[in-house]
Amino acid sequence: MLNFELKNPTKIIFGKGEIAKLTNEIPTDAKILMLYGGGSIMKNGVYHQVKEALKQHQVEEFGGIPANPEYEVLMDALKVIKEKNINYLLAVGGGSVIDGTKFLVAAANYNGEPWDILKQQIRTYEGDALPFATVLTLPATGSEMNSGYVISRRATGEKLSSGGPGLFPLVSILDPEVIRTIPKHQIANGIADAYTHVLEQYMTYKTAATLQDRFSESILQTLQEVAPKVLAENFDYDSAANFMWCCTMALNGLIAKGVPTDWAVHSMGHELTAQYGIDHARTLAIIAPSHYRYYFENKKEKLAQYAERVWNICEGSTEEKAIKGIEQLEQFFHNIGIKTKLSDYTEEYSETAEKVQKAFEERNWLGIGEHKALTPQDAFKIVEMSY
Amino acid sequence: MLNFELKNPTKIIFGKGEIAKLTNEIPTDAKILMLYGGGSIMKNGVYHQVKEALKQHQVEEFGGIPANPEYEVLMDALKVIKEKNINYLLAVGGGSVIDGTKFLVAAANYNGEPWDILKQQIRTYEGDALPFATVLTLPATGSEMNSGYVISRRATGEKLSSGGPGLFPLVSILDPEVIRTIPKHQIANGIADAYTHVLEQYMTYKTAATLQDRFSESILQTLQEVAPKVLAENFDYDSAANFMWCCTMALNGLIAKGVPTDWAVHSMGHELTAQYGIDHARTLAIIAPSHYRYYFENKKEKLAQYAERVWNICEGSTEEKAIKGIEQLEQFFHNIGIKTKLSDYTEEYSETAEKVQKAFEERNWLGIGEHKALTPQDAFKIVEMSY
Repeated sequence: MLNFELKNPTKIIFGKGEIAKLTNEIPTDAKILMLYGGGSIMKNGVYHQVKEALKQHQVEEFGGIPANPEYEVLMDALKVIKEKNINYLLAVGGGSVIDGTKFLVAAANYNGEPWDILKQQIRTYEGDALPFATVLTLPATGSEMNSGYVISRRATGEKLSSGGPGLFPLVSILDPEVIRTIPKHQIANGIADAYTHVLEQYMTYKTAATLQDRFSESILQTLQEVAPKVLAENFDYDSAANFMWCCTMALNGLIAKGVPTDWAVHSMGHELTAQYGIDHARTLAIIAPSHYRYYFENKKEKLAQYAERVWNICEGSTEEKAIKGIEQLEQFFHNIGIKTKLSDYTEEYSETAEKVQKAFEERNWLGIGEHKALTPQDAFKIVEMSY
Repeated sequence: MLNFELKNPTKIIFGKGEIAKLTNEIPTDAKILMLYGGGSIMKNGVYHQVKEALKQHQVEEFGGIPANPEYEVLMDALKVIKEKNINYLLAVGGGSVIDGTKFLVAAANYNGEPWDILKQQIRTYEGDALPFATVLTLPATGSEMNSGYVISRRATGEKLSSGGPGLFPLVSILDPEVIRTIPKHQIANGIADAYTHVLEQYMTYKTAATLQDRFSESILQTLQEVAPKVLAENFDYDSAANFMWCCTMALNGLIAKGVPTDWAVHSMGHELTAQYGIDHARTLAIIAPSHYRYYFENKKEKLAQYAERVWNICEGSTEEKAIKGIEQLEQFFHNIGIKTKLSDYTEEYSETAEKVQKAFEERNWLGIGEHKALTPQDAFKIVEMSY
């Protein structure tokens, strides 16, 4: 097992009706900016619950943060923060709104060009950022209990990430009732996103971190079990709750401790979103199977363990089980309505591999993934396999 | 799934050689009291590593904290804290030293009779206690990453617990190398202790908390896998690391979130330690099987799930699997060298059930366990079944 450090100070308040607890979680003298997305919170009652909880607080609002939160929009929010002397941010939304809020709490106290935080990977330490809380409305990214974020810049087509120990939410409220009104394709995205988050921290060369492996497998198995229920017509609270908690646990740092991680699927996936606007989760489902086929020799033992423990495939050699593991993964994505080939999403895919290779070269990403060995040329081949 | 709150701010620093990091984790202007137990840290090199890391710090020492940390001894330490204006505590030891330290950081700032904190169950909130760190030398109790503690009082034979959100260690350093020199019977105690911690949070009536169930099963399976290796003659670092991390994860709060918990095995077990001085972990192994047999109807579905998922027993009815689950549990304790009958530990057991009943009555514990329904009379019967 690798040495590790773990500190996650976010307070999670989980369950039905818990949004009301915001009242006592945010100091009454805070000057709050409440951030949200396209307005779904107006329809599902969350906006009303938040405003009700904060009726004794000073709350300004900033809506309209888009999926893949855009730098240009966030710069408008930053203006509001400065003009109105905001000292506490409240993200009410999914990963995009929360990620955007993390960038804003970092940028609010940063002296310099805000984009440099992303471009130069400037980390945000404890005390560097404004305090913030979240009310999660779309389980998927785990952003509600981690300290990382991803921001897109429309003007340049870039999608970059940053973070740091100063960017954990103080409080995150997770009420599974919000899942009731989420469109099914977004729930499917959430499932695929969380599932792939686990894979990025699990599907590596084999290690001796037995407990972490089993925790990862627990999340995968639970997502598989609840997927049909959260995608079904009738709302089932317990399935929704398990789904929501899986998404948080998939990327709050725990399962990454003591093990190598990969994240190359995300790096390639981000390019597909930047180029074609394909939903983040779907880009992962496009890339992951090809990535595992390309690095089969590295990953076959873990793929076989995955097949055996997660899908109960116990017959055959390591290689045979590993191949079946990849097939099961593809089948799982298909079962939740997510297609796994780039050509399912766009007809103009023929130059994608070159574009990804070029983007990696420009960014000087000469070795990423579990062994820091995936080159831009490798990315070319993996993306090409995903057509 | 039940509503829950989760906040665990302890920073874990895990791995070989990490004790050296203490240097930067404790403020240089702190007046530290370093607490330890019977002196094993003098022999295994931990004392030297800690002193080396803190050679620029002001460090007073207080050794000799016994297993089942005694109030009387701790009152001597409290005197040192007050006389020397100590403002930071460092526990170097196992659960007993850490638990004792938690009591001390709470008592140091408490106005009143320190025993009242335990007797009246006074909780310690954030900011109420002195800051403290731990260096774990004996994996078992999880005290290094939770906010609870148990203290014994020799004069009265009492063993009481308290805690509160102000009692999480700021930092805990876990170096699996310490396991190299731990006597095997203490390692066996650690395994049994962590294993039973999981059972207290898992072996209840069946719930819909799928992810938490699987996390619990992950810890149980990992403990089973590593047990023979950590008890073997040759030291194996990865097994030691998995064992150590299992012990922490078994009682850092995570697996208890959203589920009912029981803890009646501990309540009865504490009485056996108070009366006979039997090792804490061994009292749990004595009580647990009888507790599960006594509450068979309540727990049989979960017992069957345990048998199936943790021991791979897939044949038979729910009842048959549940019975086999209890037998496997007993066998597991026996395999790690822990006997499961009270009469294995003392010949003078015949009045134990009455004494436990009486102690529960005196403490007015009229309903404990998962349903708050276990009466002193039930405790009598369960303890009697354990003879």
